[in-house]
Amino acid sequence: MIPDSLAVASDGALPSAEGEERRRRQVLPATYRLFYRKPVLVERAAGAIIYEPDGTPLVDAYNNVPVVGHSNSVVAERVSAQLQRANTHTRYLIPNVATYAERLLAHFEKPLNRVILTSSGSEANDLAVQIARVTTGHSGVIVTGHAYHGTTSALHALSPSLSRRWLTPETGLVDVPDSSVSAEEFARVFLAGVDHEISRLNESGSGVAALLIDSLLTSDGIHPFPLGLLAAAADRVRQAGGLWIADEVQSGFGRVGTHWWGYQRHGGTPDLVVLGKPMGNGLPIAGIVGNDAMLDAYGEQFRYFNTFGGNPVCVEAAMGVLDEIERLSLLDRTATLGAQMLSELTETIRDAGVPFHVRGAGLMIAVDTGTFRAAQLLAELLRERGVLVGTSGVHGEVLKIRPPLVIHESDCRKVTAAVESAIHDPELRRHLMTHSTEEGSE
Amino acid sequence: MIPDSLAVASDGALPSAEGEERRRRQVLPATYRLFYRKPVLVERAAGAIIYEPDGTPLVDAYNNVPVVGHSNSVVAERVSAQLQRANTHTRYLIPNVATYAERLLAHFEKPLNRVILTSSGSEANDLAVQIARVTTGHSGVIVTGHAYHGTTSALHALSPSLSRRWLTPETGLVDVPDSSVSAEEFARVFLAGVDHEISRLNESGSGVAALLIDSLLTSDGIHPFPLGLLAAAADRVRQAGGLWIADEVQSGFGRVGTHWWGYQRHGGTPDLVVLGKPMGNGLPIAGIVGNDAMLDAYGEQFRYFNTFGGNPVCVEAAMGVLDEIERLSLLDRTATLGAQMLSELTETIRDAGVPFHVRGAGLMIAVDTGTFRAAQLLAELLRERGVLVGTSGVHGEVLKIRPPLVIHESDCRKVTAAVESAIHDPELRRHLMTHSTEEGSE
Repeated sequence: MIPDSLAVASDGALPSAEGEERRRRQVLPATYRLFYRKPVLVERAAGAIIYEPDGTPLVDAYNNVPVVGHSNSVVAERVSAQLQRANTHTRYLIPNVATYAERLLAHFEKPLNRVILTSSGSEANDLAVQIARVTTGHSGVIVTGHAYHGTTSALHALSPSLSRRWLTPETGLVDVPDSSVSAEEFARVFLAGVDHEISRLNESGSGVAALLIDSLLTSDGIHPFPLGLLAAAADRVRQAGGLWIADEVQSGFGRVGTHWWGYQRHGGTPDLVVLGKPMGNGLPIAGIVGNDAMLDAYGEQFRYFNTFGGNPVCVEAAMGVLDEIERLSLLDRTATLGAQMLSELTETIRDAGVPFHVRGAGLMIAVDTGTFRAAQLLAELLRERGVLVGTSGVHGEVLKIRPPLVIHESDCRKVTAAVESAIHDPELRRHLMTHSTEEGSE
Repeated sequence: MIPDSLAVASDGALPSAEGEERRRRQVLPATYRLFYRKPVLVERAAGAIIYEPDGTPLVDAYNNVPVVGHSNSVVAERVSAQLQRANTHTRYLIPNVATYAERLLAHFEKPLNRVILTSSGSEANDLAVQIARVTTGHSGVIVTGHAYHGTTSALHALSPSLSRRWLTPETGLVDVPDSSVSAEEFARVFLAGVDHEISRLNESGSGVAALLIDSLLTSDGIHPFPLGLLAAAADRVRQAGGLWIADEVQSGFGRVGTHWWGYQRHGGTPDLVVLGKPMGNGLPIAGIVGNDAMLDAYGEQFRYFNTFGGNPVCVEAAMGVLDEIERLSLLDRTATLGAQMLSELTETIRDAGVPFHVRGAGLMIAVDTGTFRAAQLLAELLRERGVLVGTSGVHGEVLKIRPPLVIHESDCRKVTAAVESAIHDPELRRHLMTHSTEEGSE
């Protein structure tokens, strides 16, 4: 069977981005936004490369979802086999669900020994907050000042990066300090912010149900340091009767290289760990890991049934991700490639004499340009040079480099070479000279 | 590649339900519940049949998700092909997303001309409520007294069937009348309830953002009549400045036989239509259909990006569902088989002299037993006879018959024969004699 995306126009011409964009606007509303001045039209993708219809290869240094590579054959074969076998829900027994849970839980320390499967990180974060509220009897939730935790109504109130209009009095906001300060100052200011919000939520009567925090502070601009910060913040929240919910949607499944989960870099063990994006390499599967005492207590009070959560087809995709992370030693590989890339980018930026800062952990690397326009322009210039990256940060001032973990070393070099070339592009140089003091915002 | 679910114990023995249940309890918390005294262990499934490891075939008269049949080959081939090609998100252009949207929207009347894709009915209902609140400036939402709309925090407040503990002052509850009353009385009482909640929400200052209603009142016990009821309720809500959100997660994609969507039986056109469960035959995909003016206005104010929503792999599954509904003329087939089954079950119940009532539309059929225990017992007795059904209703008193639409006529006969046999089972007879006046509740 030929998928419709192979279709060409009746005159034999390749599909064009302009034509596809027009067609899309007739059926998808303005909630949908495209990346780039020249949007990417995907013809096919493999490993860390996305191909446009004319065969142009783009190095994908943006997508963390296809963690074991676009069109990964182990994932594809597992999913295809299960599709021909059975696909139903967890009110019946389907052995691969328990098998996957066993394999996944083997990567967590005690007392984390139970998993609940959902279809998206949003569903998982929303449920984790529900569980924290029921478990603690409190309602306040502390998040970072530019956090993003998902698309549900409850999570909009905990995702200031979407809009501060959705926030409620139960949202505790802790702004992440400017990264130009020292590590000690960063920790001092951040923890003082946590203390302040704990006091405020206690005084308001909400109390503190949880600290919900991305272990790499990804949408706040990627802040992997200082180590120990998350555990220290969690200690304070626990003393106030709240839980530590580690949002590992961005930082999980080997992204940081040295560990399976981003929180493990900081020491301590969260009460609930939320998994998402890369879990099924693009098939919708996500989940919550916690301990039996807490999750059973919740489960005895409340039913939770998720129609698609834990369906065996998405579970096979997730199983394939574990297979590939193990088979390809992706953690070690990520640690090595990430360190190389971090060092090369740091050198490139230094040599170019631009006022950018580079930081990261594993294959989650930030190039902090200081302004929204510089980061946006750099992303556009990289796209023109065949490299896809994203942006992040309170003002959108950070270039986010986050490729599939199977990226080849030679493609990492293409990314750093493209950054070097883009930095010397006249458009960027002009921008840096004329806007050197600008504080951009989206 | 052999999926893990094919694995047998090292001694060559078939996996047992008891063993699998034990294994599952070590990794999944108490939030997970199994159906039946003797849980179903799924070995494989095809069409409307689920097979246990010893080869026992069970007629699936419960699952609406695999609408075009378990292990449907068109869906499997489309998904497998796309998995080998590309799977990424809607910030890039992937032509099959627009193609699917065009094909889907062709089944809706004006002005419904735009679609937003999500990964689950919960995500879609949650977003539909957000859109209604932003569009109207009101916050109150009217639902039926035993409604179920999803698993997010915001939807728990609109799903009294889960627990009335989650409800808020912004929830307007309209109890569905006892089905023993006449159609006229049913409509009169229901519409009076809607009027009452509109007044209450207006007086409280919440106002009415929406009537969120399952077009078959599935969790309230399946109430397909009187026709025109939904449109009449929607008229009242619109006069109060609210929207009609048709929750078609249960009733959509041909389930009612005579129409693509359950609301179409009642006349009128909703403002937002929510799609889910059967949309991808088990792959996680769901969505909202609305008009461009409303959805663009929302989209211009708020970003909405859903990582997995509209991924081309799940879109190919959804495309396969449209292919198969069209190729197999499933609407006509459903109307015919549903009418036959309804008439045969009515006759069976009448001949048996039990105080049950049968009602339905298409292949969504209710056998209202009057009590929780009778319905539960009947479901267990049917499982023993190789037929899988569910229960529904305010007191769990209704047997819910809702097979994949590709069910064979001969398997429909097995369902009615099994119901006939179960009704004469001594265990049920004893129950009916000793509990004839019981008002069961879960």
